[in-house]
Amino acid sequence: MKSKIFRPDWTEKSPAPGTYRSIFKYGDPQHFKHPSDAWYRMIKQDFHLSDADFSSKDKEGLEQVIINRPVALKQQQMEALQAIVGKENVSRDDYSRVKYASGKTTEEMLELRQGIIHEVADVVVHPRDKHDVQKIVAYCDKEVIPVTVFSAGSSVNFGCRPVTGGISLVVSTHMNKVLEVNELNQTARVQPGIFGPAYEDALNKAPELFGSKLRYTCGHFPQSFEYSTVGGWIVTLGSGQASTYYGDAYDIVFSQEYVTPVGTFKTLDYPATATGPKINDIMKGSEGSFGILVEVTMKIFRCMPENRARFSFMYPTWDAAVNASREIMQSEFGKPAIYRISDPEETDRGLKLYGMPGIVDKFLVLRGFKPMQRCLSLGNVEGDRDYTRLVARKIKAIARRHGAMSLGSYAARKWEKTRYTEPYMREDLGDYGILIDTLEAAVTWDNLHHLHEGVRAYMKSRPDTMCMTHASHFYPQGTNLYFIFIAHMNNPEEYRKFQHGIIDSIQKHGGSLSHHHGVGRMIGPWMETHLGKEQMDVLRVLKRHFDPHNIMNPGGQLGLDR
Amino acid sequence: MKSKIFRPDWTEKSPAPGTYRSIFKYGDPQHFKHPSDAWYRMIKQDFHLSDADFSSKDKEGLEQVIINRPVALKQQQMEALQAIVGKENVSRDDYSRVKYASGKTTEEMLELRQGIIHEVADVVVHPRDKHDVQKIVAYCDKEVIPVTVFSAGSSVNFGCRPVTGGISLVVSTHMNKVLEVNELNQTARVQPGIFGPAYEDALNKAPELFGSKLRYTCGHFPQSFEYSTVGGWIVTLGSGQASTYYGDAYDIVFSQEYVTPVGTFKTLDYPATATGPKINDIMKGSEGSFGILVEVTMKIFRCMPENRARFSFMYPTWDAAVNASREIMQSEFGKPAIYRISDPEETDRGLKLYGMPGIVDKFLVLRGFKPMQRCLSLGNVEGDRDYTRLVARKIKAIARRHGAMSLGSYAARKWEKTRYTEPYMREDLGDYGILIDTLEAAVTWDNLHHLHEGVRAYMKSRPDTMCMTHASHFYPQGTNLYFIFIAHMNNPEEYRKFQHGIIDSIQKHGGSLSHHHGVGRMIGPWMETHLGKEQMDVLRVLKRHFDPHNIMNPGGQLGLDR
Repeated sequence: MKSKIFRPDWTEKSPAPGTYRSIFKYGDPQHFKHPSDAWYRMIKQDFHLSDADFSSKDKEGLEQVIINRPVALKQQQMEALQAIVGKENVSRDDYSRVKYASGKTTEEMLELRQGIIHEVADVVVHPRDKHDVQKIVAYCDKEVIPVTVFSAGSSVNFGCRPVTGGISLVVSTHMNKVLEVNELNQTARVQPGIFGPAYEDALNKAPELFGSKLRYTCGHFPQSFEYSTVGGWIVTLGSGQASTYYGDAYDIVFSQEYVTPVGTFKTLDYPATATGPKINDIMKGSEGSFGILVEVTMKIFRCMPENRARFSFMYPTWDAAVNASREIMQSEFGKPAIYRISDPEETDRGLKLYGMPGIVDKFLVLRGFKPMQRCLSLGNVEGDRDYTRLVARKIKAIARRHGAMSLGSYAARKWEKTRYTEPYMREDLGDYGILIDTLEAAVTWDNLHHLHEGVRAYMKSRPDTMCMTHASHFYPQGTNLYFIFIAHMNNPEEYRKFQHGIIDSIQKHGGSLSHHHGVGRMIGPWMETHLGKEQMDVLRVLKRHFDPHNIMNPGGQLGLDR
Repeated sequence: MKSKIFRPDWTEKSPAPGTYRSIFKYGDPQHFKHPSDAWYRMIKQDFHLSDADFSSKDKEGLEQVIINRPVALKQQQMEALQAIVGKENVSRDDYSRVKYASGKTTEEMLELRQGIIHEVADVVVHPRDKHDVQKIVAYCDKEVIPVTVFSAGSSVNFGCRPVTGGISLVVSTHMNKVLEVNELNQTARVQPGIFGPAYEDALNKAPELFGSKLRYTCGHFPQSFEYSTVGGWIVTLGSGQASTYYGDAYDIVFSQEYVTPVGTFKTLDYPATATGPKINDIMKGSEGSFGILVEVTMKIFRCMPENRARFSFMYPTWDAAVNASREIMQSEFGKPAIYRISDPEETDRGLKLYGMPGIVDKFLVLRGFKPMQRCLSLGNVEGDRDYTRLVARKIKAIARRHGAMSLGSYAARKWEKTRYTEPYMREDLGDYGILIDTLEAAVTWDNLHHLHEGVRAYMKSRPDTMCMTHASHFYPQGTNLYFIFIAHMNNPEEYRKFQHGIIDSIQKHGGSLSHHHGVGRMIGPWMETHLGKEQMDVLRVLKRHFDPHNIMNPGGQLGLDR
């Protein structure tokens, strides 16, 4: 007779309004995704913990947010802001000031649990439209009041932290509409604060909403899709999970309108130009440091989900998976939309977590796909029906030539279901002092193994640390390595030290400091070494030009004014 | 009994060394391509000319170049430059000064025929490598000596004109090697002054020259391919004829190294990054105004000419051709490499010039493809064999749905043969006072007809002016309209006025000022109106940063310091 399985008391209650937890909890306050029993077993085993360690929770952040900090803005300034946007769109209560100063870093979660608050704005302002933004920026430039933009708050690099106070400008409250779908040009003009699902939904329903003949898709689906906005994608240079086909956020912007302290401008609507360096591109990735994106025209794509072709494979080794992937990306037969390969540790943990039956494991081993060697690959192809069939067939042929076994579409379908929900487990694990964090780096093919091995070795040098890596976002010239680590660690100082060591290691092994998380204030300190003084000076000179009084997201963003 | 056909005495002799003609003659001094008899008949008829008008030539520019202008550089400065690059790499003879100040504009041809010379440099310098360039730029910055870069000299916008004297820096003399082919990354590191054919040849022969497994192609084939260089493609934002698949020059640059007055830097080798605005992109299109491109890593592509699938179609109308093209570019089944549609005038003149038999014409008319309505389309698909077959099949199906008749691969093959040689006819026609010139503009689909009709109407408002237009370089969001005009006109002032009217008309009808010819000093005066002050200020601030003493290609390049 089996005893009843012990399960930790995973939280099933929405955080109470006004609490720290309501700020750091990911996503929908009503939604939870608990670690599976397999997850729980794995964590106990790897971290040498027992059920007893999961009998009571650590700091949960259930307290009401109280900061007791003065508002540095003068009454007259408050009134001026209220006059611009209306009283109802200005707030200075403690909770708002903390909420709109926070992102979703692991560090913030650790600290908010303990009631540790870093810098907050003096006042939170919700502009109603781009004219409000113009007036606010002009006023703040005159009064030298810092303006830090907040959109969805899914930043993982302190991009929304108002280091020198001033205003948190929340663009997602009102500026969140699709203004136009231009079917001839295949573009959509939108406000920056629209969330992924609302945007995609409007494009899917373009015939009903905009009288178009066809349905469209935005092509950009980052893991944070449900809790990030179009403007955020662009100013932080995000990448969607289907970027291998649709391109990174950088690629799918057509034109943009910015409000800066030195003026407002809209870049031109051309599919290409040879009229000198492209201002449209210079503004992308500026992370609120040059000005505020107030409107954007995006490229959109025909939506044909019925044609999607899914695939998954098991490769015998990481080497085989990498070589096959390179071959796929360089063979000129088209590109898959989603494409991923998991390294051996991620593969094995994944198989365990998703409950692969023992018999399947035995079969895999018999066929030569051994634990801590085998690598899972999965993805899909989008587009025209014949095109998706062709690309899927080509991928299969290359995979086979590299010793892979097809797993059909099963793993890809399974992955699709959970593609946006993984972050939900973070709070549950954090309640028991366990953290999950990620860092990513772009890399060329010829440096992939060096970077993977080097960063992994650093992570693994810390005892009892899980380190799972996958490559996602592929290009003919290379890919992105996404490093996930899980550790029993709840001391912010210890975490910071370890995390900085990982960034150092990425830098040392020739990875890009960021592939799609952006820079913010977290990566800022590494920027000058990474880019070199000459290139950093270019960013500085643009910053000084657009923002002579340093009011736009000041305090270390992009490493600019440290 | 037929009388013998009269043919003008087209020049068949290489221009003598040292002559004006040797400077403005296009391409290989030994190579000629004369207007066909059909061309000649068409010109006579359209311009109301008779054989008598072709009995003697206009100004041919056969005189020796003599300028009698002082060299403003001090002896000491001359010696300093000689000390850097060696005496043999510095020249100040009249011929060199004019040759390396000249591009291939129609205006320059008209003027050089008459011995009219604009600004020239004091001295021509041929750096041996990037270290030479560094020393020259550092010295010139100290001494405030202007530096204007000359590479292949195929500029059609006075991009190489040393408006304030100083140095013509010729990068194609020595800095023209492929330094490395990195097969893993599918990149090639090259010096900027390498010409198209040498570069492509090295990539085609990569197995023999660099020990690679596969053969590669550069993917960039502008009409000037044989007489333009890799560095020129990038700093002027060129587009190859196969850009619809391979991308514009902008897209196929991986990383770059620049020498500027404020320092030398190399952008990082990553397939993508999210580390702020991309310096690698900011430098593209800078046309020598920020600094000098001294090395570049290009993306390369598998070379599989055996898979090329060609197509050509006759559409009943321009509308049908445009609509089909848009459908092709937006259908998500892959892209053709070369893709073109000719408007009715270009189609009919083309058919005439290439000698379509009368019976074919009758057949076309019977089938509803009427003169001055029907439109020719042609192109090819490159890549994997199954991919090229699929894309060609899809294009055919869409063409048919839009009422087109397939012409097989005939027209595409015919076009390929003459793709680089059309410019050779310019001198022949110019000898009899007839000029051909081109201007191009990017445009979105929803503005294509407005731009086409507007610019055409302007051109046609001049009596007896041929105006042929095609769209090439396609994108899901639009295309490029390439306007060709032919006129009996040999007065530079008249030409300038007409040409400026065309640029005005492009601007007025919402076209981009340039799709791939760049800006130079010709389009410069329109830039501020086109981009707006705010965006022009961004270019200015970058210019001031990189080049505080205004020595880099000064004098109106990009409209910067007018």
